Parts: sequence; structure tokens; C-alpha cells
Amino acid sequence: MGASGTAGKWGNWLARVALNGEHRRSVYLVNRSGHAALGRPTYRSLRELPERVEMVVIAIGAPGFEAAVDEALAAGAKVIVAITAGLGESSAEGLATELRVVERVRAAGATLVGPNCLGVADTGSELTAAYSEFKAGPVGLISQSGNLALELAAIAEKAGLGFSRFVSVGNQADLGMADLVEELAGHDQTRVIAVYAEDFRDGRAFARAALSAYEAGKPVILLTVGSSRAGARAARTHTGALVSVSVAVDAACAAGGMVRVATPHEMVELAQGLLMPHPPRGRRIGIAGDGGGHVALAADLLAANELEVPALTGGLARRLASTLPPAAATTNPVDLAGGGEQDLFNYARVVGTMAESGEVDAVVLTGYFGGYGEESAEFAETEAMVARAMADAAEAAGCALVVQTMFPDSAASQVLRSRRVPVYADIDSAVGMLARVIARSHQTPAGVPGLPEQTSGTAVDESYFGARQLIASAGIPLVEARRVVSLDEARIASDEIGYPVVLKAIGSVHKSDAGGVRLGIVGPGDLEASFVAMAARLSASIFSVERMAPAEGGVELLVGVRRDHSFGPVVVIGLGGLYAELMRDTAVALAPVTHELAERMIASLRAALLLLGTRGRTPLDVAAAARSAVLLSELMAGRPDIAEAEINPLLVRHLGVVGLDARVVGA
Amino acid sequence: MGASGTAGKWGNWLARVALNGEHRRSVYLVNRSGHAALGRPTYRSLRELPERVEMVVIAIGAPGFEAAVDEALAAGAKVIVAITAGLGESSAEGLATELRVVERVRAAGATLVGPNCLGVADTGSELTAAYSEFKAGPVGLISQSGNLALELAAIAEKAGLGFSRFVSVGNQADLGMADLVEELAGHDQTRVIAVYAEDFRDGRAFARAALSAYEAGKPVILLTVGSSRAGARAARTHTGALVSVSVAVDAACAAGGMVRVATPHEMVELAQGLLMPHPPRGRRIGIAGDGGGHVALAADLLAANELEVPALTGGLARRLASTLPPAAATTNPVDLAGGGEQDLFNYARVVGTMAESGEVDAVVLTGYFGGYGEESAEFAETEAMVARAMADAAEAAGCALVVQTMFPDSAASQVLRSRRVPVYADIDSAVGMLARVIARSHQTPAGVPGLPEQTSGTAVDESYFGARQLIASAGIPLVEARRVVSLDEARIASDEIGYPVVLKAIGSVHKSDAGGVRLGIVGPGDLEASFVAMAARLSASIFSVERMAPAEGGVELLVGVRRDHSFGPVVVIGLGGLYAELMRDTAVALAPVTHELAERMIASLRAALLLLGTRGRTPLDVAAAARSAVLLSELMAGRPDIAEAEINPLLVRHLGVVGLDARVVGA
Repeated sequence: MGASGTAGKWGNWLARVALNGEHRRSVYLVNRSGHAALGRPTYRSLRELPERVEMVVIAIGAPGFEAAVDEALAAGAKVIVAITAGLGESSAEGLATELRVVERVRAAGATLVGPNCLGVADTGSELTAAYSEFKAGPVGLISQSGNLALELAAIAEKAGLGFSRFVSVGNQADLGMADLVEELAGHDQTRVIAVYAEDFRDGRAFARAALSAYEAGKPVILLTVGSSRAGARAARTHTGALVSVSVAVDAACAAGGMVRVATPHEMVELAQGLLMPHPPRGRRIGIAGDGGGHVALAADLLAANELEVPALTGGLARRLASTLPPAAATTNPVDLAGGGEQDLFNYARVVGTMAESGEVDAVVLTGYFGGYGEESAEFAETEAMVARAMADAAEAAGCALVVQTMFPDSAASQVLRSRRVPVYADIDSAVGMLARVIARSHQTPAGVPGLPEQTSGTAVDESYFGARQLIASAGIPLVEARRVVSLDEARIASDEIGYPVVLKAIGSVHKSDAGGVRLGIVGPGDLEASFVAMAARLSASIFSVERMAPAEGGVELLVGVRRDHSFGPVVVIGLGGLYAELMRDTAVALAPVTHELAERMIASLRAALLLLGTRGRTPLDVAAAARSAVLLSELMAGRPDIAEAEINPLLVRHLGVVGLDARVVGA
Repeated sequence: MGASGTAGKWGNWLARVALNGEHRRSVYLVNRSGHAALGRPTYRSLRELPERVEMVVIAIGAPGFEAAVDEALAAGAKVIVAITAGLGESSAEGLATELRVVERVRAAGATLVGPNCLGVADTGSELTAAYSEFKAGPVGLISQSGNLALELAAIAEKAGLGFSRFVSVGNQADLGMADLVEELAGHDQTRVIAVYAEDFRDGRAFARAALSAYEAGKPVILLTVGSSRAGARAARTHTGALVSVSVAVDAACAAGGMVRVATPHEMVELAQGLLMPHPPRGRRIGIAGDGGGHVALAADLLAANELEVPALTGGLARRLASTLPPAAATTNPVDLAGGGEQDLFNYARVVGTMAESGEVDAVVLTGYFGGYGEESAEFAETEAMVARAMADAAEAAGCALVVQTMFPDSAASQVLRSRRVPVYADIDSAVGMLARVIARSHQTPAGVPGLPEQTSGTAVDESYFGARQLIASAGIPLVEARRVVSLDEARIASDEIGYPVVLKAIGSVHKSDAGGVRLGIVGPGDLEASFVAMAARLSASIFSVERMAPAEGGVELLVGVRRDHSFGPVVVIGLGGLYAELMRDTAVALAPVTHELAERMIASLRAALLLLGTRGRTPLDVAAAARSAVLLSELMAGRPDIAEAEINPLLVRHLGVVGLDARVVGA
């Protein structure tokens, strides 16, 4: 509906691409004017069609949208693709229209994609109703941005990757991200699911759908925006969507086994890697190339990405050396040192020998290969044969093969891609992909926890002592503290607690920065001086006197839970205290977390070095730290009235933990 | 010499490309056989030539190399380009030949490039004597790897960048990296110098040459290898070069104002940025694009790279809105929201308005622009006009313009590149380049310090007390310590120092990891228990009893100096103690350092947050920390017999510093 004969109009493009599938199904063009379009008659209305329809694409203006949907349903449509813009994303009135329409669509047992979308495609059935044509292939693409979908399609085509299905979700009035991921998880031709999302709606449903895709062996790659203020501003303007905070997205990825990427290029690069016939499961990488510079660069980058470039055994090195010139390096990285030029098949021999050795989990071929064909057609043919031999050898050995080449468009590169060998122009892309694919193979999705019944407590007390009370009520040990409002009260509290004590002025946010915390007060004189100075400088009237925790040998963590509008409460565990803002060393998960997951989160921190007793250090009480995280996550899971709760620092000791500070923010 | 008629041979290719410049100079082909080559006669020897020669390219085998050089010198050659391989990089005998030859070359007042090199090119004079042809342009390229030079040339060509000069340095028997950088610094057509190096020889001379290029307004971009063990292994095999440790290279970059990159692609991407007509000097970036997804992604990436995407003022936003559809976002990022499709010149209006506003230091255009021309030749022409208008507007405003486009090969993209507007396919490349260019504009080279006369001390005492003595002799305060070998001695030492004390078992490397350090021993009983336990567990026989430094409010740094075989002693300052290995937060410089430089290094650490008194914290004694670094660097600058000296931790307090541990390694 809205088919047009005028080139450049959406209704024109959509009609053209839809007609490409006419040998598979009847296609009718509808246009109120009834003028012929694209050399064929149009119908003024769906009512005039000679048969009932299954699917209707609506590409008319917003004012006629509601009537068009009714007409479609009356004509028997079970699927409506709504290109029409200017509805829910533009105004409250538009949103109301959407809601009314969706109700009728659902009542009719139909579904609707959009509105404000770019259409859908299914290459398996040669159905295209979108502003782009898609080459057939294994990638299912769900996108909330039209131009980014176009870019992804273009990059994928260069990389030799095609698409199984494409859905532009638009405003997700009826079908949302989660439904579509779920659907693709069960779609045979789809082997990787690529998602560009700005608005997740029910984030947990989305994560659950991703998890079911993971379980079906179909990785979900996620690209999203809004991690910066300006990015969030842009996303909000774009679709009216409220973006999720970045940690919530990370938590959802960990929960559902998704891999998050930062750019469209990275998305396609990773998809290539995930589609390898034999993705590597270990970190040992063999490098081969004809030229010391290239193989050395690759080695440095692999090491920087925490992959291993192990020296090969003497026997293997000798086997490699037997076909190469004397100057060749054969211990890994392997430098053919002119051996490729001498005999192109040396490339296949080296790659094959490394692949079948069992000494590496993947072989990276880097540098000039792909360029010999530039010399002559004969060379190009030989090079393509060598490429086939390499792919054969890697496949036979069940070993991953990844290629970086100065000639990514060569015939040899095309041969490799046709065999699902990832080929990259940039060594950084090859190495980045490998690091991600290998990291993923070592991670198990955390799972998507359900949320208990949401109970609102009494109004949330955001004060320091209110926060302490709430957190203590969950069973988390906090350092002993007394609220005092005078020096006399402070003296009494200190005597009861026993020196040394800590004095905190209550109220300011960055307490320790502003001089609002004084540690290690050794006696009454010290206490008086500190109290008077603090009261004067900070105009504080409420104080807390606290037991001084012996920090020696302990490590300070941060344990917090914050609520995201899409994904719900999210647990953050990280290095805390003074070094938290320097390190940004955190692990995240959807709340509530199990004890086992909390311990995994702690073990995943870089700071785990300090906690787990590595290198002869006494291990700290990680179990107690995990228990605090579990308790806080369970508390927050049931309390939608609290936006944020945090213990920072939580001092982890050889035996037990103790929270030294607490903060709560109401929703 | 060694010109060949056989296609595929080096002597054939070199002769062919050299003859391309025959309209600029006489070119003679020499071949012992005297057979015609490339349709012209060859000479059996340089002696047969009708005139004396200026430059000789030697492409014959190693056995005839020495005689060929003599022949060249006799024929008047002032420059010899030695392609010949199999000399210094292969054997001691080859190295001896090189040394003899270089002596005679120098005695004759001539210079030699190579041997084992790929040749040279000077596009300004249409001289090519290399295994590749180079498009003319502003980049001077010096490379120690042939294949990487080829790759750089290919990537640069795609990016619309050409080369002024190319030198393949080979074994650097006569001319080295430093000479060549120095030469390019004074070469008019060269505006950026790209260096791929594996072996720096005299590293300080290289850094000084880079500094002179910096001062001549010609940035040096450095790509090197060997930061990983496997990378070092490969580099060593490749040219026999001993690679420098990565921190030494970083220190040289800081000293000489070089920018280090990790891949050939990054090198070309950065070169484009450094050649912009108006490189940005501030961090404020404006973003424009037709599509919310693209501009949001760009905003997130810019923020992740610590650049700013400021909200535009109301006045500017209104000016932008006046030509755009109502749905457009105009506060930054600017989303044209279909305004580009409506009127392509809206792109130029938006970019121009942002560029001339003074509210941003650079404009990033991202997304679809470049793709409208795909529709028709007419659109392509209009789009190219718009591209010109954008470049004009940015130039007139003196504002940087950077473009990411899904259509990097379009006519519009070519127009932009011809105006030195960097154009990238990947937004990550655009943002990474901007971050580097802006960071560079805020950095001043540290300068290349001279080294004093090298005096060897007595044999270096690597023991703990030896290290303490050496470091204390430089005037650096260390915590009070007594060497003890029995519990009785420990008791006496503790009484003299005063409790609480620290007890260290001397000898093991990771003392604190292995339980060889016990802090905060409060009295004699505690001391005895600790002593007995340590002696038993670690079989230690020597101990140190030390004053317990009150850590509260202080920050632990690491101050060390290590010697590199090319760059000499290098100072490392970083976060020390427990968090050093987690953070990898370090600053490096060539030793010795001035006080001012040492303070700059400390201020550049992320840990500076904790040191400089930000957010109301009491500032710590950075000057004293800097003084320690200066003293250690001066000590090490004159002592080639010491490979490494380190104070970790150096406790920085409100007033003064004190070293809590010391380590020295002999050369």
C-alpha cells in the first residue's frame, strides 16, 4: 500500500524489490490514485484484490495509517509491515494510534512490524520488503536504525557474508527485539544473529531470547548506543527511546551469552569469526607469513590481547624447516623468508603442518599472500589452488585458520571466504576477532534470573543511617557506628566503641574527598580537634563515630546494585575505595545473583589477583564478599522503589567482610 | 648492476622502474653477461659506461658484492644502493664484508644504503630504484621491512596519500634510521615521516633526529615490533636485530615527539589526520550525520576516547534547526533526520555552521554521505559539489573536518581527500585518529638528554642492603632499616627503631607475596613469633628490621630506571605497591630527567588523581617524589654497569617521600 511509480520514493523502491520475488508469490501494488506503477496496474484498495492476502506492507503517510491497517486486517493479512513514520516516535497522539492499532492487530491474530521501520527481508524465500536488497547468507539482522543496517549489509557483502533474514524493528509497537531474536533462534538458515538496538523494552525478555539463541548454537552479537551522555541524547531524539545504561547492557550480555561490539565493522568482523568451521577453543596461536615484519607485528598484537604465541617443539620446527629456505624462522612466528615466493604451495604446507600439529589452536596467516596473483593469471590460479589447499588442510585438522592480507579483494581471498575462513585487511581486526571468539568459548552465560514479586517498602530513607539500616537489614555486616550530633555524644560513642575510631561528617557526597572523613583517631584530644575542625569547615551538624577497621592485608571492594528501566536491577562488583575510579575494574550481572555467580564475578576481576591467594598471598574471604553481593542483589530485586544501593568500600579480610560505607538512592 | 631481462627477477623490476625516470637522468643497465635487457644494450661493467655515474644500484649476489662496490666507487658513485642480501644479516663473514665495504665507501666520501634492502625512491625527481612504485605525496617512508612498506604504500594509496621519499634501510651498514629521519626533516616535499623500525642502533641519535623533525613541523609516526617475546623472536630472526623493550621505545617517542602506532593501518590513518589543513587543538567535537544511530555511535566512541561532545548553545542549535526537518536533533550530535535526503546542501550548511561557530574544535561527519551519488550521475555531481562546499567551509573557518562514510570510494570521498579531509570507512578509525592528534597537540617533546661520561663502579652488589646503599648514596630517603641475622639482633634493632616495626626476610624476589614481609609488628612477642615463623617457613637467615611507615593518606609509587641496549637508561614512574601490577599506570622518559619533566610524568599518571589534591584531597609531596626520580635517573645515567634499579614502593606523603623497598640488577 503506497506503491509508487516515481523513482526515489519509498513506495517505488519497496514495490520494485517486492516484485523481484513475484516468481515465489503473488505481489499486488496498491495506490489510492490507481495509476499504473512500474509498468503494471495498481489497485485503489486491498478490497479490489482478486484474492485474500497474507502480508501487507504499508508505506503511506501517518494520517491514513489506521484505516490502512483495518483494511489490511479485513483483507486477511496475518503480517503487517508498517513503514509509515510520524506515529509513536513523534507525538502522544501518534502513540495512541499505535496502541489502538496494535490491539486490533492482536485481536485479529495478526502481527505487526514497525511502524517507522525500513521493512523486512527473508532471503531463503526471496522475499524482500525493505529499502535494501540482501545477499543470502547465515546472518540474521535485527536493526533499530535504517542507515546502520545499510552499512552492516555493505560491510558484510565485502566480507563475503550474506543475510538469512532482516527485520527493521522501528517503534516495536507489536513485535519487539525479544520476539525477533527468539524467532531467529529457531530459524534454520540463521547461524549468527546481529542486533543493533537502542531500546530494549522488556530487557529481561530480550536477554532470555538471546539465551535461547545461545542454547541453539546461534551467537547474538549486540551493537547499541547511549554509553555516553551525548550518545544517549542522540538515541533519544532518534526514536524517542530511553537508552539503557552501559553496565545494564553488559549485564544482559553476560546473562544471555551475547557478545557486545562497538562499531558496525567490529560486528561483521566478529560474525566472520563466529562462523568459522572450527572456532579455536584454546589460546595458542600459530603465526605464518612471508616476511619478518608482518609476523612480528601479529605476535605483538596477539600478546597484547592476552593470547599465546608458543614456541613450537623442535620436531615440528624441523618439519617446517624442511621445505623452507635456510633463513626461515620456524619456531613461531613462522617466517617463510622467501619460501612463499619460491613455491606458493609452501604456504599450504606450512599452514597445514601447523594446523595438524596439535600445538596451536588457530593459525594466523599474515602479510603478502593474496598478492602473487597480481603478477599474472597463471599465478592467480596457482594462488587460488593454494588457498583451497590451506582451507582443506585446516578443515581436515579441525584447526581454525584466520587470514590477514594486503590483498583482501584477491581471488585467493575470495576462495578463502567461500570456505568460511575469515579474511581481514587489518591485522588488528584478525587479532581482535580471535581474542573475542576465544574469550567467548570460555564463558558460560550467567542466565537470566526471574524477579520476585515487587514490593514497595515505606518511603526510602536516603540518609547515611537510613542506608546503613536498609543494607544491614539484608544481613550484610557493617562496621559499628553511632550517630552523634555533639562533641559530648562523640566522646561517649568513642569510649564505647574503643579507640582508634573514625569520624565522618554526614551529608556531603564525596565524603573522603572533601575532608569529611577522619580515620584513625587515637584518643579524646584527637577526637575533639577533628570534630571541631570538621564542624567548622563543613558546617556539619550530624556525625558518625565508627570503629576503625584494620585495613592491613584486606582489600576494598565495591558492591552495588542499580536499577535500569529496561533490564531491572543490575549488580556491580569491583575494586573499591581509593582505587575504584582509577581502575574501573568491575563485573556486572542481572540481579539477583546466585552465590556461585557472585564468586565467578569476583574471580573475573583483575583485582582477583589480590583476593584469591595467588603467588603465595593469603587468600581473602571471597565467599563472604560474594554473600554480601547475593544479599544486596536479593534485597534490590524485590524493591522497585530503590534506584541504587551501594557498599563502598566493603573490606574483604582473611575472615569475613565488613562494609565501611553505605549509600541508597530512591527510585 | 645486475639488470636482468628475465621478468620476475629483481634486477628486471629495478631496471624497469629506474628507466621510468630516464627523461630526468641517464640510466645505464649493467650485467656481467652483456646480454640486452628490456630492449636495450647492457654494459658488462661500470668501466664501460660513457660517463661517470652519481648513483649505483647493486642487485647482484653476495659473492660479487665487494668488487661491485669498488667498481662503483671507481666509477664516481656518490650513492650506492645495495639490494644484495646474504651479508651482515646472515653470517659473521658477511658482516666483516659489510664493515670493510663501508670503510671504503666513507673514505671515498660516498654513502651506502643497505645492503639487504629494497631500494629507494624520490618521487619529486621521479627517481625510483625500489621494488615498488610510489605515488607522489607528502609522506616520507623509512622502512626496515619490505613487505610492510608495500602494505603501507597500498593502504596509503587507498587513502589518497602519496610519498615524497622512500628508503628501505636494510642492514643500516652505513646510513641508519637516524641519518634518514634527519634528512627527511629538512626535505621540503616531506610533511610527515613514517618509520617502520626493528633496530634503532644508536637510539638516542634516532630520537634526536625525530626531535629535529618535530621542530621542523614534521611529525614522525613510528611502528615497531618486539613488545612481546614472540614478536622479539621474529624480529631477531628477520634482520638479526635485537629489538628494544617497549618502554624504551615509548620513552624515545616522548623524548622526540614521535607518535607510536601498532599497525600499518593505524599509521596511514594517523598520517591523514596529521596532514589536515587545520588539525584540532581542543577536545570539543561536533558530530553531524543523517541518522540517529550513526551519530549516537560516534558520540559514544568519542566519549570513550575522552573527547567531548558538548551540547551546542541555543542560538547555534536554532540556526541549525532552521534548515532542517522538525525531527532533526540540533544540540550535538546533530541528526539531519532526513534533511540530507531532502537537500544535499544541508550537509554543507550544517558542517559549515558548526565549523564557524567556534563551539567545537572539529566536526565529524558520519554515516551515509557519499552514498547519494550511487543513485545517478546527477546526484553524484551534486554530492561532489557538496563535498567541496564542506571542505571550503571548514577551511574558511579554520576548523578540522573528519569524515566517516559507508562509501569511502565514492566521488564525494575522493573530493574530500583531495582537500586533505581525512575520510575513513570505520568510525573507530576516525575517532582514534582524532584522539591521537588532539593528545599530540597538548604534548611537548621531553627532549633527548645527553649522557654523562660512563663510569663503572665497583662490582654491583645486588643484595637488598647493597641496593639500599646504592640508592641512598644518590640522596634518596629510604626507610630506616637494620640488617639482622638472629632474633636477638632483631630485638635490639626493634628497640632502637621503636615499635611498630616491619620484618623482612631477605632473598626471595616477591617478598610480600611469599609471606616474607610482616608489617606492623607491635611488640617483642609479636616480633619473636614473626621471626620464628619466617625463619622456619622461608629458611631465611638474613632479615631486615625496619621502621613502620604510617601509610595513611600516602600513595605508593614505583620509581625505576632500566637500561636498553639502544636507548640507554629509561626512567619509569608509576603507581606502586599492591596495585602496580593491576593498574599498569606508568610514565616513561629517557634518563636523566629534569625535575620539571619528572613532575610532568607524575602528573600524567591516572594515579595523579590521588597525588595532586584534586577534589579537595590534601595534595601529596609530588616535588619530593620527582626529586627521587631525578636522583635515581642521574645515578643510572652514568652507570652502564647497572641494568636496573627500582624503588617500589616509594611512599609519597603530605611532606616528603620514603622508599620502602629497593632493588638493583647488574648489567
